[in-house]
Amino acid sequence: MENTYAVIMAGGAGTRFWPKSRKALPKQYLNLFGKETMIQMVAKRLHNLLPKERIYVVSTKEQEPLLRSQLDWLPPLNIIYEPFGKNTAPCIGLSAIFLNHRDPDAVMIVLPADHLIRNTERFLEILSEGVSLVREFPNALTTIGIQPTYPATGYGYIQKGDKVDGHDEVYQVRAFAEKPTLDVAEKFFASGEFFWNSGIFIWQTKTILTYLESLMPDLYQGLCQIKAAMDKDNLPQVIETVYKQIRSDSIDYGVMEKASNVLVLKGDFGWSDVGSWEEVYNISEKDADGNVVKGKPIYKDVTNSYIEVGDRVVAVIGVDDLIIVDTEDALLICKKDKSQEVKWVVEKLKHQRLKKYL
Amino acid sequence: MENTYAVIMAGGAGTRFWPKSRKALPKQYLNLFGKETMIQMVAKRLHNLLPKERIYVVSTKEQEPLLRSQLDWLPPLNIIYEPFGKNTAPCIGLSAIFLNHRDPDAVMIVLPADHLIRNTERFLEILSEGVSLVREFPNALTTIGIQPTYPATGYGYIQKGDKVDGHDEVYQVRAFAEKPTLDVAEKFFASGEFFWNSGIFIWQTKTILTYLESLMPDLYQGLCQIKAAMDKDNLPQVIETVYKQIRSDSIDYGVMEKASNVLVLKGDFGWSDVGSWEEVYNISEKDADGNVVKGKPIYKDVTNSYIEVGDRVVAVIGVDDLIIVDTEDALLICKKDKSQEVKWVVEKLKHQRLKKYL
Repeated sequence: MENTYAVIMAGGAGTRFWPKSRKALPKQYLNLFGKETMIQMVAKRLHNLLPKERIYVVSTKEQEPLLRSQLDWLPPLNIIYEPFGKNTAPCIGLSAIFLNHRDPDAVMIVLPADHLIRNTERFLEILSEGVSLVREFPNALTTIGIQPTYPATGYGYIQKGDKVDGHDEVYQVRAFAEKPTLDVAEKFFASGEFFWNSGIFIWQTKTILTYLESLMPDLYQGLCQIKAAMDKDNLPQVIETVYKQIRSDSIDYGVMEKASNVLVLKGDFGWSDVGSWEEVYNISEKDADGNVVKGKPIYKDVTNSYIEVGDRVVAVIGVDDLIIVDTEDALLICKKDKSQEVKWVVEKLKHQRLKKYL
Repeated sequence: MENTYAVIMAGGAGTRFWPKSRKALPKQYLNLFGKETMIQMVAKRLHNLLPKERIYVVSTKEQEPLLRSQLDWLPPLNIIYEPFGKNTAPCIGLSAIFLNHRDPDAVMIVLPADHLIRNTERFLEILSEGVSLVREFPNALTTIGIQPTYPATGYGYIQKGDKVDGHDEVYQVRAFAEKPTLDVAEKFFASGEFFWNSGIFIWQTKTILTYLESLMPDLYQGLCQIKAAMDKDNLPQVIETVYKQIRSDSIDYGVMEKASNVLVLKGDFGWSDVGSWEEVYNISEKDADGNVVKGKPIYKDVTNSYIEVGDRVVAVIGVDDLIIVDTEDALLICKKDKSQEVKWVVEKLKHQRLKKYL
């Protein structure tokens, strides 16, 4: 794994796990599944493959305390700070500039901080395979596609094209598709031609920079200004100036959908975006009544529910299929299949200027 | 209404309205239906019929601050304090001694503090009719029976006997029955011979004292000791000594079921014991979705539910038929038809020695 680096994208501010996630405490810093937070799990996993010096995190400055406390073993200089979030294209461009400055032959694995991976061993195998693929096809952009298990409307899709010779589950990418309607998702699912878009990418930094130059010239120009300021004292100011000018775009929209040479590698390592409380429930281990219970509620005749409480006394009787999350200052009670509506709550709170609950 | 007095029994400690009701804040002091608490509504109602000097409250000393603040217009000496609750027979006996000492010809209306009456005008008419009945039959014990509207298992029942001549809806009482099983309740209901026991009584104090003398001689002896100490400084000590010795008994069990001359007057004034959150929901005015909402929860796709919240942010999405009561330190989430299980929660808290939540 020489010249190989991982970049964990950790900048997102989660709204889907309110009231546990807040603007100041996004999903990737939550302990949703046990002893560790999602970013701790991802970083630890990568550390099986790479020395810590080659594991990077991109985030915003305001998340520095969280990152420093949760990933205290990571070299502080491996945290790249964006002045503010501008979606994945600038985030990936900035990381590529940093890595390229350190190692012109860098291969970068880019991945979100807030996805759950159940089979670590297989995950690492696939990443290694992806790196080999990049060595074999140095001008290709490689992404990992997940075999859909149901017609999800919450994920983007990747349509397979021709199989790549000499590889088991590697395909040319025919098309990228945004999150579909249910109708379309059902067609995608039935066709067998589509993967879910995992948001995990593997490529040479110079390759992605070349693509950025041709497909996102404005961003590329900004990145060049940053490159020119590398190792200088005013680097943070330059980054901030550039970030004020560039557009907020996803790497999917800005590059992947338009690039000519994109490969997709099937990732069968038990992946989940964990996009809602319902998904946390689905993934978690349940008791005999189908409940997932965290904290010490007093409960009776409760089935198929997710209950997470803190220090307050919470009594729950005779309910089915609910999400209940009680924190010190806010409470969510939600039918399980409505848990995506939590975003609506956060919007409501914004409108009501109840900022301290965001 | 000369020589007529009302005695509001306010001593009970509610467990059925946890987490709003606590040991230190029983149901009668809760604002469940609008601007006033239940005891405030009862006292105000009686004040239409009687001057405040003739309205009494019996309660325990620990409820003094609540009583004094909620009924600040009542003469302080009209609050009779029991050292501790011993069910309704001692409570009624003690009140009878006080009233009898003030006015040997006193007629007393005894009623619980925590019942809801919807039609005040009709209620006052019935009480007046009851007082006339006592004047006509000075040796009778009169009670008010409620026409059942369903086969309730949560109320005691009164079986009608012969109609009393010259009165529309007055009957001799054939029998009193404790809270029945559903089977029995259905028979009672179908027969048309039964009223619900409202716990409202009207009688001459000397009549009830005579009955106590013959049917509950131990209690009567204690009451005589109290009578002897009236106007003396050691009255509270005497009451306490007596209360330590007497048994805890209901007036129904101790007197009404055994007395020979009991009349029941039909009370058609929209009565409810309000024994559970479900009943509070049933009685309250609902919005178009069938919800009763107090406080300012953020909610969506909620139907047929009771939501009462305080200052915390509470979001409720996609639920039906729930009771949600959130207080500063405790939360109840309960299927509506399970709301009698709240008692179970209180028991649980007792066992877990979480006294501050009781």
